[in-house]
Amino acid sequence: MRKGQLTKEAVLDRSVSLASQLGLDGLSIGLLADDLGMSKSGLFAHFGSKENLQLETVKAACHQFVDEVVAPAFRQPRGEARLRAVFENWLVWEKQRQRPGGCPIVAISVELDDKPGPARDYLVGSQKDWLGALSQTVQIAIDEGQFRPDIDTSQVAYELYSLILGYHHVARLLQSRNAEAWLRTSFESLLDEMRIPENAKSPESPDDGDGQTA
Amino acid sequence: MRKGQLTKEAVLDRSVSLASQLGLDGLSIGLLADDLGMSKSGLFAHFGSKENLQLETVKAACHQFVDEVVAPAFRQPRGEARLRAVFENWLVWEKQRQRPGGCPIVAISVELDDKPGPARDYLVGSQKDWLGALSQTVQIAIDEGQFRPDIDTSQVAYELYSLILGYHHVARLLQSRNAEAWLRTSFESLLDEMRIPENAKSPESPDDGDGQTA
Repeated sequence: MRKGQLTKEAVLDRSVSLASQLGLDGLSIGLLADDLGMSKSGLFAHFGSKENLQLETVKAACHQFVDEVVAPAFRQPRGEARLRAVFENWLVWEKQRQRPGGCPIVAISVELDDKPGPARDYLVGSQKDWLGALSQTVQIAIDEGQFRPDIDTSQVAYELYSLILGYHHVARLLQSRNAEAWLRTSFESLLDEMRIPENAKSPESPDDGDGQTA
Repeated sequence: MRKGQLTKEAVLDRSVSLASQLGLDGLSIGLLADDLGMSKSGLFAHFGSKENLQLETVKAACHQFVDEVVAPAFRQPRGEARLRAVFENWLVWEKQRQRPGGCPIVAISVELDDKPGPARDYLVGSQKDWLGALSQTVQIAIDEGQFRPDIDTSQVAYELYSLILGYHHVARLLQSRNAEAWLRTSFESLLDEMRIPENAKSPESPDDGDGQTA
């Protein structure tokens, strides 16, 4: 791409990548301009201030996550298939972003957790949405009669998020060759605990009393 | 304490705290000297270089973790009691270090995961030791006949670490009031899955064929 012709989206892509390597605090309009070979005044016209560049970078990282992990999964059939798609997309996201800089959401979360301001507020809102969406995905599988009705969906959302963070830690810091196997084993155990066994899916199932099976 | 009279340990305590707020990369001998009201030349005599200060800071954080989490737990009786002590000490550690800066191990891990060098090497060694110690704690409970013999102990170590990282994320970034309840529920489920039920602990237990019970 030629100088000065990058779209705002392409600039923010690069900004997200730099933020996961250097931290949001290491990011500045001047550094980004140098990195992209663009004029500082042009970028300043886009972003106005370092604080706004940081906010826009956090928004861009969250939007990328929605585009690559959340949205494609939500086009899958309701139920376990959708939860599996969430999981697989999330794992691809973590792997693709392992170098350089790693998952921008993890990096930004640790950096912003004690820094009040609009960037943190946006991230927190986005992460709460994501935990809510995970809970909802599990709830749908319950509604579809695939998972047990007594499941605490927010507990499952917390556990799933935990497993991904644990994977990030052992895969990225410790470079453990077992990381993906551990993650997959734990995910399958989580599904096994939630799933209603085939032999229990009978017409007398209490959540579907009409005797019709799907 | 009077200026110039701080021990190296006290200096490193402060250095660990600053590193979790500012990042290791934000740490310098000059900044630490200003913060403590000590002479820069005195600290330079202690640490020699910024790189060495970073390494010593990582070592100090890992030593604190061993002193506060690992060592007291390993004085508890072998078996489930010791695993519980590990868990409770770890949770106290995470809570005490929630402000300011948060758990130094989490902060430093995310910062160093793609920065080769002695500080990263030390952290990786220490974290591998910790996962190994967690596995070993589970293995001891198996050997004591409290947990099922078919448990994959390294899988359990990964899951336990994941739950703590998930807790750190939802408690610290999202300020979720459910964080500790989720963590405790998941930990109790993990124990429930591992524990040999009381009614199965009979003299004919295959791992203890001499008919004697402890």
